[in-house]
This record gives sequence, C-alpha cells and structure tokens, in this order.
Amino acid sequence: MSISALQKERAKYQPKLPKSLRGDVKLVEGEKTESVADQKEIAELFPNTYGMPLVSFEATDTAAERQPVNVGVILSGGQAPGGHNVISGIFDGIKNIHTESKLYGFLGGPGGLVDHKYIELTSDIIDEYRNTGGFDIIGSGRTKLEEEAQFDKGLEIAKDLGLNALVIIGGDDSNTNACVLAEYYAEINAGVQVIGCPKTIDGDLKNEMIETSFGFDTATKVYSELIGNIQRDANSAKKYWHFIKLMGRSASHIGLECALKTQPNITLISEEVAEKKQTLGEVVDYMACIVANRANDGNNFGVALIPEGLIEFIPEMKVLITELNDLLAEGTDTEKEFKMLKKSHRNEWVAGQLSETSSGVFSLLPSGIATQLTLDRDPHGNVQVSLIETEKLLGEMVKTRLDEMKEVGEFTGKFGTQYHFFGYEGRCAAPSNFDADYCYSLGYTASVLISEGKTGYMASVRNTTSAADQWIAGGVPVTMMMNMEKRHGHMKPVIQKALVELDGAPFKFFVSKRGEWATGTEFVYPGPIQYFGPTEVCDQTTETLKLEQA
Amino acid sequence: MSISALQKERAKYQPKLPKSLRGDVKLVEGEKTESVADQKEIAELFPNTYGMPLVSFEATDTAAERQPVNVGVILSGGQAPGGHNVISGIFDGIKNIHTESKLYGFLGGPGGLVDHKYIELTSDIIDEYRNTGGFDIIGSGRTKLEEEAQFDKGLEIAKDLGLNALVIIGGDDSNTNACVLAEYYAEINAGVQVIGCPKTIDGDLKNEMIETSFGFDTATKVYSELIGNIQRDANSAKKYWHFIKLMGRSASHIGLECALKTQPNITLISEEVAEKKQTLGEVVDYMACIVANRANDGNNFGVALIPEGLIEFIPEMKVLITELNDLLAEGTDTEKEFKMLKKSHRNEWVAGQLSETSSGVFSLLPSGIATQLTLDRDPHGNVQVSLIETEKLLGEMVKTRLDEMKEVGEFTGKFGTQYHFFGYEGRCAAPSNFDADYCYSLGYTASVLISEGKTGYMASVRNTTSAADQWIAGGVPVTMMMNMEKRHGHMKPVIQKALVELDGAPFKFFVSKRGEWATGTEFVYPGPIQYFGPTEVCDQTTETLKLEQA
Repeated sequence: MSISALQKERAKYQPKLPKSLRGDVKLVEGEKTESVADQKEIAELFPNTYGMPLVSFEATDTAAERQPVNVGVILSGGQAPGGHNVISGIFDGIKNIHTESKLYGFLGGPGGLVDHKYIELTSDIIDEYRNTGGFDIIGSGRTKLEEEAQFDKGLEIAKDLGLNALVIIGGDDSNTNACVLAEYYAEINAGVQVIGCPKTIDGDLKNEMIETSFGFDTATKVYSELIGNIQRDANSAKKYWHFIKLMGRSASHIGLECALKTQPNITLISEEVAEKKQTLGEVVDYMACIVANRANDGNNFGVALIPEGLIEFIPEMKVLITELNDLLAEGTDTEKEFKMLKKSHRNEWVAGQLSETSSGVFSLLPSGIATQLTLDRDPHGNVQVSLIETEKLLGEMVKTRLDEMKEVGEFTGKFGTQYHFFGYEGRCAAPSNFDADYCYSLGYTASVLISEGKTGYMASVRNTTSAADQWIAGGVPVTMMMNMEKRHGHMKPVIQKALVELDGAPFKFFVSKRGEWATGTEFVYPGPIQYFGPTEVCDQTTETLKLEQA
Repeated sequence: MSISALQKERAKYQPKLPKSLRGDVKLVEGEKTESVADQKEIAELFPNTYGMPLVSFEATDTAAERQPVNVGVILSGGQAPGGHNVISGIFDGIKNIHTESKLYGFLGGPGGLVDHKYIELTSDIIDEYRNTGGFDIIGSGRTKLEEEAQFDKGLEIAKDLGLNALVIIGGDDSNTNACVLAEYYAEINAGVQVIGCPKTIDGDLKNEMIETSFGFDTATKVYSELIGNIQRDANSAKKYWHFIKLMGRSASHIGLECALKTQPNITLISEEVAEKKQTLGEVVDYMACIVANRANDGNNFGVALIPEGLIEFIPEMKVLITELNDLLAEGTDTEKEFKMLKKSHRNEWVAGQLSETSSGVFSLLPSGIATQLTLDRDPHGNVQVSLIETEKLLGEMVKTRLDEMKEVGEFTGKFGTQYHFFGYEGRCAAPSNFDADYCYSLGYTASVLISEGKTGYMASVRNTTSAADQWIAGGVPVTMMMNMEKRHGHMKPVIQKALVELDGAPFKFFVSKRGEWATGTEFVYPGPIQYFGPTEVCDQTTETLKLEQA
C-alpha cells in the first residue's frame, strides 16, 4: 500500500490522553442518574440499565491485578474523522489492562456482528491506521440492531470469541440500540457488556455529559477551509454569489460552526426557520434583501451557507410534502388520475388538488423542482426530500425575487450564482489533533469501563476546551440521555437529539454578528487543518464548544 | 479585519529565494531566441521584441548604483494561489533596488489600467497579504488588452504615475497581450516596459523555459486533499462511485496531477480521448467495464476523475455541437421551425435534421442533456458547453450501459453515484510553500528585469525540483513561446498552449499504473497542505514536475 508523505509523518503522532488515564486508574462512582424525560417509561423499559451512577476516573498509585478483556468493536452509520483512533485507543487500553487482551473488529457495520464477519485487530493492523481518517479498517454499515434475533446471533459469535464486551461507535440511533442491546444481554445474563462511543459529524449527539461528538471538529474544519477559499475567490473575482449546501439533515450545528469560523454573508439555521415558522418566501426575501443591500454598495458577490435539511424545517413545506404524499400515494385514484395526465399538465393539476396554502407554495417553486417533487419518489411512494437541491431551489427563487425588485427599482445590481455541496469531502479527513486526541481518549475510556464491568454506558470525555491532560474521562449511562419519541407511529425510547439551541451562546453570538457579516465583507479564511506547528493553529477545537463552555 | 490563527502564523513565513537573488545581482545574456514556430510571421509582427536573448541572473559582489523604479502591477484572469506573493516579491525587489521605488496596483484587472483605477501598494498593505491566497489585494478581471486605444489610455496613467514598467500577471492569453503591449510601447518609444508572470492553475502555460505556472501546485494539492478524503469515504462505505469533475477547459494537467497523487480507479485525459478519436460511447464503455470488473471483485465503489473540458475533446461531440450551432442559429428558418414545435417533440425533430453520425450521438444523450444542448445558448446563439454537467452525463450513460450489461449477465453489481465539481475550492487557497517561494521569486525576478531595462520578457524561475536556493532566475522573451493560431477566423500570434503530452513522462507513468489502480483499490490520501513540519511533507512540488524533470 502506498501512503502519502503526510500519512507517514502523521503515523508517528502520539495522541494526548487525560492525566487520569495515563497510569493506573481508579473508578469513582458519582450520583445516580435519571433520564432527561419520561423517567417512568424509560425505567420500566430498562430495568437493568436505568438509574446507574455517573462514573469518572482518577489516577491512583495502587495497581490492581486485572484480567485480560476480549472486545468486539463495531463502526455504525456514516463516517466521521477519528474512528480509527477510537479503535486504537481501545486496543492500547485493553493491552495496557492485560497484554493477552484481544480486539476483534466486526466487518461492514452492525451487520458484521449478526453475520459473524470479523477480523482480529492485531498491532500490525492497528499501527497502519493510527491517526488516519475513514472507517476502512473494518468498514461501516447502516444495519440497525433492533431485534432479539439479531441480538441472539450476535451473542453466538461473542461467546465463540470469548468476548467480554462490544463497543459500538455510532450516532444517537446506534447508541440507543447499543443500550437496548446492553439491557437485553444484562436481562439474560449473557455476560457481554455493551459500551457506546459518541460519533457524528452532525454534532447533534451532545448533552451535559457528552460535550461533543467526535468528527464534528475535523469535518467543520475541512468545510471551513473550503468555504474560506471560496470566499477569497468571491472577494477577488467579485462576480458570483456562492450558495453552499452543507451536509446534515437534522441539525444546523455544522452550518453554525462554519459560520463562526468564516463569517459569510448569509447563514441559514434550520432551527430558527422552524421556530419562527418562516415561509419559503420569507427565507427567500431575507436572502434577496442581503443581496440587494450588498449590490447597493457595489458588491455583487457573496457567500451563503445552507443546511441540507432546511426544507424539512419550513412548516409550510412540511405540510406540502405531506399533502403530496397523500395525493400521489401508490394505488390511489388521485395517483391514477395524475399518471394519465400529459406531463405538461401535471403540475397545474397538482396545484388544483392541494389545500390553498400548499397550492400557493407549490406554485412558487421553480417548475423543475415542482416536477421533481411529484416524480422522484422513494420505494414507499414518498417525496424524496434529500434529492431536492435546496441550494439551487433557493438560488432560482432569489433570482426571481431580485428580478421583481429590479422592476420596481429596489435592486440595481447583478446576481450570478455558483453552487456547491460539501459533505463527503470532510467525513473521512484525517482527524485534527483535537479529534485524534479525543477519539483516542474515548476508546481508552471504553476499555477502562469494560475492565470495570460496566454496561449500558457511553464513554465520556469532558472539559474539552482545556488542554488534553485536564480532560475528565468517565462514563454516562445511556438511559440518562433518553426520552420517549414517536418513531414510525410508535413511542420509543431514544437518545434526545441535540438541535441548535436558539438561546445557546453559539447561536446568540452568531445573531449578534450576522448583520455586520451580511453587509460588510468580513470573511475569515481558516485554511487547511495543520498537524504540525504552533498550538494556536493546531490544537484549537470548535468555536461552538468554546462559546458553550465560556 | 479578523484573520484566522493560521493566517496570523503564516504571515511570518519568509519565502525562499534563489541564491542568485539574495544579494546584488548581475544579469547574464544567453543565446538569441526564436519563436517555437512561424518565425518569419512572428518576427515581422514583433520587430522590437523578437529574437531577444534569454537572460539569467548571477550573484555578484559589485553593487551597482541603481535608480528607483516605479511599477504598476495587474492581475489578469482567473485566480491562482500565490498572486499576492508575486506582488510582495515585486515590492521587496524594487525596494531593494532603491527605497524610493514605488508600486501601484491597478484595480479589477487590466480594466483598471484603461480606466485609471489604481492604488499605491504601501508596505502596510503588502504586509497584510504576504503568503495569503486570492487576488483580493487589488482584484482581478477579464478585460482583454488588445486595442491601441486601450494601450494609449494605459500610457496616460503610466506617464502620470511616472511608471517605468507594468507587470502583468496572467495566463497564456494575458501574456500574449502583454507582449503585444510591450511591442507597442517599444515601437512608440513610450518608455514603459512590460513584463509578464506565468499564472494559471490549469498548468497549460509551460515550456522549456517556464517549468510550471504558479498556482498549479497549490490548487492540485487542494483538489487532491478532497479526492483523497472522498476515496477514503468510498472505501469505508463501499456503496458509491464518486464522479469528480475538475476545473480546466483546455488541458487535463490538473486531472493527471491529481491522479498521480491519489491513484483513483478512473482518470479521463482529454488529450488522449482526442488523440485516439474516441467516441462518447467508447469513453462510457471504458468506464462501465472498470465498474463491472470491480463489481466482480465485490467492490461496488470507486472514484473517477473527469476533466471539465472533456466534451470538447471528443471529436463526434465537437461535430455535433457545430451542427447544432448551425441548425439553431438565430434567425434561421430551422430555428424558427424548432421554436414552433411542442417541447416534447423538439429533440426528435433535431435528431432528424442532423447528419447521421451526429443524430446517433444526439440520440444517445440522456434527454435532459440533449434538451440543454438545444436550449441553453449563449448571447451569440452557441451551445454553452460549459453548462453541460459532464460528470452527470457520464454517470447517467454509464448507468444505462451497465443496465444493458446486466441483462446479458456481464454486470452483477450495484451502481450508485455521487457527483462533485472542484474548481473554486482551490483557486484562492493560501499558497503552498512551493507556490509561496516560486511566486515571490517570480515577482523578485520581475523587479530585476525591470531594473535592467528589459521589456517583452516573462519572469522565469527554473530548476524548480531542486531546493529553492538552487533555482535559476532570469527572463524569457515572450515571443520565443509564440506561434500563429487561428482565433475568431484570423491568424494571430499567441503563446502555444501546453496540453498533456502523450509521450511525456507524467502521462506515460500514469498509463503504466492505471490498470492496477482501476482494478485494485490503491487509493492514496494526501491530506491537506501543511505549512509547518517536516520538509518531506511541506516542501514537495508536483508529481508532474518531478516526472518531467527526472
């Protein structure tokens, strides 16, 4: 395998650990916990794993006699920078506990556990992947561990391999399922512990005890590098508005963090749009006004950040989508009538069938997008919101709005657009120093939780805006983060998703600045992630964390 | 102005200069030059600037008494990383010649000269922009300096400011025009010299004396960072083919360099497609075969690099586009007939009007693309080739081909695609160490050429695969790089564009490897540009240069 010069040098990096994990470790139990909501229901659903105490680690002089632990690790869901360091942290951690400990990796995600596909992760393999991006060491996958049959199949291989524990590295859903699995194995006395690790570039798995999910730091740094480069281009050529869509369906943490780093002219935050019940027209007006104001100053250029999931946060779009799903549901009379129509007549007919409000929204859409909404449907017959090119939708609608404004003299400039979508560019970047350290510490923490016999815990590393040696490592019962939510029509216990808080410090800071950033050209150019060099450049974490912890 | 932590640290970087430029400099004249072709015509067109000798610089102990020089600088055309360092190199160079030298920057490209828009570039301004990306210090523009009226307007302001020289930083066209301007000012004894600097991320301004254009190194490093990250994602998720289009209409140097750095499964080189007279169907077959072969090994993922200009290099597409331009030319009877047709009947009608070959090609195109070719036309009524989303065109056609192969059992896998286009992401990145040094040296070289009274020269810095102190600085008469080419129906003297040479070392090396890269998964992950750290990581230039100079 050829590797790049950077990868070669970066392999030598020794991730920093919290002081408490550097020698012998003592576990300290804290207070008993409760779930964030719906305590009664959650306690009933998790009789064996509810109400457990928070735990933290402290350094100790007393070296305990420890047994080898055998661990299976699973990467679940979308890639995030640092996954390989979680695994190398687990490896080093269990080897430190006992040199005869063994680590197995299940291949291709949770499916590997069910299908008994695995490899033993030896030091030769681990060393090749230290401080690298990607999940390619064992691959990832999106199989959901939800059924007892899967749990039982998993237990077979766990028994065969003599596993003490499984570590599941995933987002909120995967960690919810990890907890259900922990509860099931505890209930049947399977003798297999389950520990979760908080992963997602989206940044929406966080709470009081989990300050950030890993990968968010690196991914937002990559996107901010590119946004900064594009801003510099915009400010040099002075002829385009760049509409940049950023990956992330649920929350706008990525957009907010990138905005704090780069200071673009426009940043849409889905949570704000939902809270203010903004219409698509209002969002477009907001953007068009900023474009027009800048044009008044002779600046016919700018940069706008758009969260991928925006459409689903606009109340009237949600309603429209629901109505379209009903109207065109497979096998209905209306769907048959729709299909009989000539293509050129369909959109008009659809508009006539919708409620007055939805009809108005539908008629406002550029015809290509309107057609897409009626044609591109998923296997369940639903509108495929993820296929909508939100950045182009907004670009076209802003153009239309500016044309109207031009006619009445409210816009005198030019409006040319370039579109971008950043997602895959950042999910597998080599982890920043922060993510390299954080992930390694999470993995190491997981190994200690296992050695201490814990199950149903998520590895937790806090105080992350301080230097790594001051970080506080420990574990949080997953049930503590849960509440009951409706999923596919049924109430289910799930980890509460962390959306952007409109009264949180990061958003409030952003709001205090966005006016200046819109009118002025206050672009900041963060440049690429640096791995060697001054600590001010290499070791900073996110603006979001700094503001949250300030 | 807020600046990022990296920008703050990077401002301290002192670009490296060739040894010959570090103290007092002696100019050494080399051999008289001839143009690469059409010597007679070029000599006649450039009586004052043809046949001048190559010049190079040497260190000397004899400090010459030098006069202040006043210089105007112009950034022309698309952005390229390092433009600000050319300007700071000129600034430091002329200040070194005499502290009373002055530098003026014309605003918004060549238009600034004609319209007399300029600023004086003082050390305060220069210091803010050292080692930064972008052209925002004075802006760039695409006005072409081609007419004597423009030259005369330029001379007015040059006289007002007491300029000894203009430095034009641009690509092949801008440098051609710089030479025409040099010739004109020499002819009328205007007393204003003109010096060019070789800029373009496309890498197509190079020859024996100009080893590389600035910006190519940095831009290809940024694109390779992103390609590497996407490759790692592809190899982790194992479910998508990523089709990545790379900026650059004329030459495929960018794609070739990125391929050498990252080893993707497929890289299309426009020059090869043209040389082999490949059809669109053949290109699609080539890609589909690689997809099918990888699927046979269970690998339903991969990465393909596609040069932006590909379509125009496919002979049958060129013919098709010409026929469409004739058929639908404004005001023709056929255009009127076309416009009277119902939209749904237009493509069929167009196919019927074309030659048999073109009709076949047109019918092969996905209908959306076919429609785009007939509808989206520029102000001259021509097909807008640049609007064609080549990556999607190929993706859809490969899909269709694979569906056919599936029916006869030649393809048994899955084919899902993600599309990307990288261009603006890299044009304004902060320059790599190589580009920071190279650009600064080019600017410094320009100042010496000016002080030595030269005009019609391009700054040249060679031996660039050695350490910077070993670089050879000097000047090359622009006429040496010229030949006669047809432009808008007339023969004109222009700098010969450097396309990828199919018998050159970089392409031959690529060909020797691409089979392995297609079948295997030999991805290399270069990671982001590093500015601090080991020289193996920070100071390497392009694979193209290394292979060319080996």
